[in-house]
Amino acid sequence: MEIFYEIKPLRAFLRGKRKNLSSIGLVPTMGALHQGHIELIKASRGQNDLTVCSIYVNPTQFNNAFDLEKYPRTLDSDKEKLEKAGCDVIFAPSNEEMYQTKSEIGFDVGEIGSVLEGEFRPGHFNGVAQVVCKLFNIIQPNRAYFGQKDFQQYKVIENLVDELQFDIQLTSVPIFRERSGLAMSSRNQRLNESEKANATVFYQSLLMASELVKKGEQFITVKNKVKQMCEATPNVKLEYIEWVDTKNLKPVQNVLDGSVLLIAGYVGDVRLIDNLLLE
Amino acid sequence: MEIFYEIKPLRAFLRGKRKNLSSIGLVPTMGALHQGHIELIKASRGQNDLTVCSIYVNPTQFNNAFDLEKYPRTLDSDKEKLEKAGCDVIFAPSNEEMYQTKSEIGFDVGEIGSVLEGEFRPGHFNGVAQVVCKLFNIIQPNRAYFGQKDFQQYKVIENLVDELQFDIQLTSVPIFRERSGLAMSSRNQRLNESEKANATVFYQSLLMASELVKKGEQFITVKNKVKQMCEATPNVKLEYIEWVDTKNLKPVQNVLDGSVLLIAGYVGDVRLIDNLLLE
Repeated sequence: MEIFYEIKPLRAFLRGKRKNLSSIGLVPTMGALHQGHIELIKASRGQNDLTVCSIYVNPTQFNNAFDLEKYPRTLDSDKEKLEKAGCDVIFAPSNEEMYQTKSEIGFDVGEIGSVLEGEFRPGHFNGVAQVVCKLFNIIQPNRAYFGQKDFQQYKVIENLVDELQFDIQLTSVPIFRERSGLAMSSRNQRLNESEKANATVFYQSLLMASELVKKGEQFITVKNKVKQMCEATPNVKLEYIEWVDTKNLKPVQNVLDGSVLLIAGYVGDVRLIDNLLLE
Repeated sequence: MEIFYEIKPLRAFLRGKRKNLSSIGLVPTMGALHQGHIELIKASRGQNDLTVCSIYVNPTQFNNAFDLEKYPRTLDSDKEKLEKAGCDVIFAPSNEEMYQTKSEIGFDVGEIGSVLEGEFRPGHFNGVAQVVCKLFNIIQPNRAYFGQKDFQQYKVIENLVDELQFDIQLTSVPIFRERSGLAMSSRNQRLNESEKANATVFYQSLLMASELVKKGEQFITVKNKVKQMCEATPNVKLEYIEWVDTKNLKPVQNVLDGSVLLIAGYVGDVRLIDNLLLE
């Protein structure tokens, strides 16, 4: 496994490889890797001759300085996990490398990035679009893999690829969960055992909401039940639960097919998200 | 010479070629080609194995619907000129092809795009950034060639390439002028002979301003002289003449090296720009 901290040598390496390879897969991460990330690596390895994992905590997508500061950084153990998973290349740049010049160019990812997470994390998806464009241009992968947990992020990146005509095939890999049902997340590392147990309320809420909407319950009633369930759980603060069309993220009332339940909230001072596709 | 109107077959063609070529050069144009464009083709041919010329009048960079409507479209004669110049590939997409989905993603190219042309053509450079990103991703050239006449546009694209890490080398090709001094421009096709003669006032203004600032004249005085000169020319309306640093486009007072004089104005209802590098 090769590790690069700078763009130039990575590019030179990939340029050399590209000639004899049929495809390169990219797994963009912010490190603090868990089994969910490893599933992305596996998916990439299954489809590509060479897999690059980027590890970069991108400051421009954090709307909250505390969250950025507390975001777990575990490069040494990340390296071990990636080596074991058969990853070929790690790209772990510094901020200076990724933002060499004062950033002048902003993105506006439009309506799809302004609702849900976009509402609670203003500017978040514009930062995501910025860093993803950079990573796509640096690595020039044929395929890129993202976790379904960041459902809205995937939609934003899908738009970006479609509109800006990146020649990259995207794959969304299903959520990987703890036995408890808790969706794997790097931010889970900031939870203690009892907080982890409390955090399962988000998945429980999704399951309950799913059953209720399938039974034809009004979503306003479902929302209230979820609120109550979260309020009854120590240290948990619900931010939103919404039921939307997977294509455009607009609220749906009764369409099950092609819809998704999205939830976000805090356990203590750690913000978590989760979602459930309905069929 | 190959001509493509759609992205998919162009990509397939270039993918096949790329394996046996060391580099691809791109000359992005809006058609209505003149000798200035042909110089760009020549520059690309000198440095690359394959030259692609894109011909696309991008609506999102026009702030003025009348200007967009009146922009000359001469695809048949463009084809002839490119064939003669030894261009390998033309890419001439429709609006439907370039904007397949409703455009959601906006760019904000920052300070460098908000002054000068950006002030008189609000949103212009954001549209430029959008279409240039698309073209770069569709064609994935190793090098791209732009005319120095659009000086500020070049700076914006340079920023875009630097910041978003496009792996593309940019070249600015010097302005090609008529014998009269008039900078070649597709919009010149909209001028009659007497208007063409009047339009030379912009280059004359640049030459006069250059001499005066070199002599140490205050730029406010220079501006006034240029205004008078333009006002004295029938049908001519000066929009601005500015003297700025080539790096950041900020006004300079007395620095000659690395500065540029930029001028813009109307002849009748045709808007023209020109510039002169100082040394």
